[in-house]
Amino acid sequence: MDREIYNKIETFMLDMMNDFAHDSLHIYRVLHHALDISITHGEINRDVLIASCLLHDIGRNLQFQNPQLCHAVEGGKMAYAYMKKLGWSENLSAHVQSCITTHRFRIGNVPETIEAKILFDSDKLDVSGAIGIARSLIYRGQVGEPLYTVNDKRQIHDGANLADPESFFKEYHFKLTKVYDQFYTKEAAITAEKRKKIAVSFFAELQREVAIDNLNELLYL
Amino acid sequence: MDREIYNKIETFMLDMMNDFAHDSLHIYRVLHHALDISITHGEINRDVLIASCLLHDIGRNLQFQNPQLCHAVEGGKMAYAYMKKLGWSENLSAHVQSCITTHRFRIGNVPETIEAKILFDSDKLDVSGAIGIARSLIYRGQVGEPLYTVNDKRQIHDGANLADPESFFKEYHFKLTKVYDQFYTKEAAITAEKRKKIAVSFFAELQREVAIDNLNELLYL
Repeated sequence: MDREIYNKIETFMLDMMNDFAHDSLHIYRVLHHALDISITHGEINRDVLIASCLLHDIGRNLQFQNPQLCHAVEGGKMAYAYMKKLGWSENLSAHVQSCITTHRFRIGNVPETIEAKILFDSDKLDVSGAIGIARSLIYRGQVGEPLYTVNDKRQIHDGANLADPESFFKEYHFKLTKVYDQFYTKEAAITAEKRKKIAVSFFAELQREVAIDNLNELLYL
Repeated sequence: MDREIYNKIETFMLDMMNDFAHDSLHIYRVLHHALDISITHGEINRDVLIASCLLHDIGRNLQFQNPQLCHAVEGGKMAYAYMKKLGWSENLSAHVQSCITTHRFRIGNVPETIEAKILFDSDKLDVSGAIGIARSLIYRGQVGEPLYTVNDKRQIHDGANLADPESFFKEYHFKLTKVYDQFYTKEAAITAEKRKKIAVSFFAELQREVAIDNLNELLYL
């Protein structure tokens, strides 16, 4: 991509993500994954891919202010308007918009073009492995959720039940373990599979370390 | 410990830690470790140990409101007053106070009695292994610190330099890796050593996953 255009898009992204400063590191990781994956794919519009990666989370602030909104849909609209303003064609700007609209895990919109699939996969790679666990734990701290929760008898909820209160354990079961089956590109699936091992062993070890089933016994209560 | 006394101390602890609700899970883990370690130590005052474990972090709120204060010192004073009020002797109450005063990692006060040493070790066990990493990451989210930081050239600070900005990477190097050499009891040292492996492999894997040294090259900037 032309350096001047890249700098403009990057500056716009950083402005839009002002309140989520640390998340810009996520953006660069996603961009890196996407470019890495794109090497083995011939027919790719790299400019669309780079713009989509840089701008994929610019709708976060809107969703944060109004949780009814979807940051992917809102970010897509914002990116379309910005790319048009930069002078890109209707077609290219709409392509960036559709990549961003379909990058989200939890909604029905499915990525269709190769650029959209690579953005989706690159974003999901950042939910896999050790980085997926680290980001999820930091996020629990940000929103005030605990590592795990206990029932009335102080037994730990393993987080595998929908009725369990929100916690890292629940997020692990309902999100972090699911990501490995959802990739569109072979390259991302292979990278994620390699990363899976550390996530699985970390969680297993964590569960062992926090298990205190025999506390009452030890207390002789 | 007598169940009625235990319930009173526990209720007092939960009241004092009202603003740190999730931290009560840490308290029970510490209590569990302490009782587990105490099994192999003959001459132990279990009542002092249990009271000290339950109350060791009740000064957190004061330190939070005024970072000049040390939660160990303040918590020790509060625990002394409370145990006296519960009818414990001057000696026993002062013993609880000294265990709590000396449980903290970063100050000069050194644990002297076996009960104080076991509290110290049990608290530090919760900084080792996967749980140490998980708690540290959640805390970074609570205080708004990032996973890692980058320099002007977008190179990642590994966190091993005092001048690096605050981050999980820095906390890992300056706190989480240091805990393994600081135990007083053999039992805690052995447990921590077993846990060390997952912490080391998690951090190494995390560093590999976030490395994007060749981003500029991929961008052809």
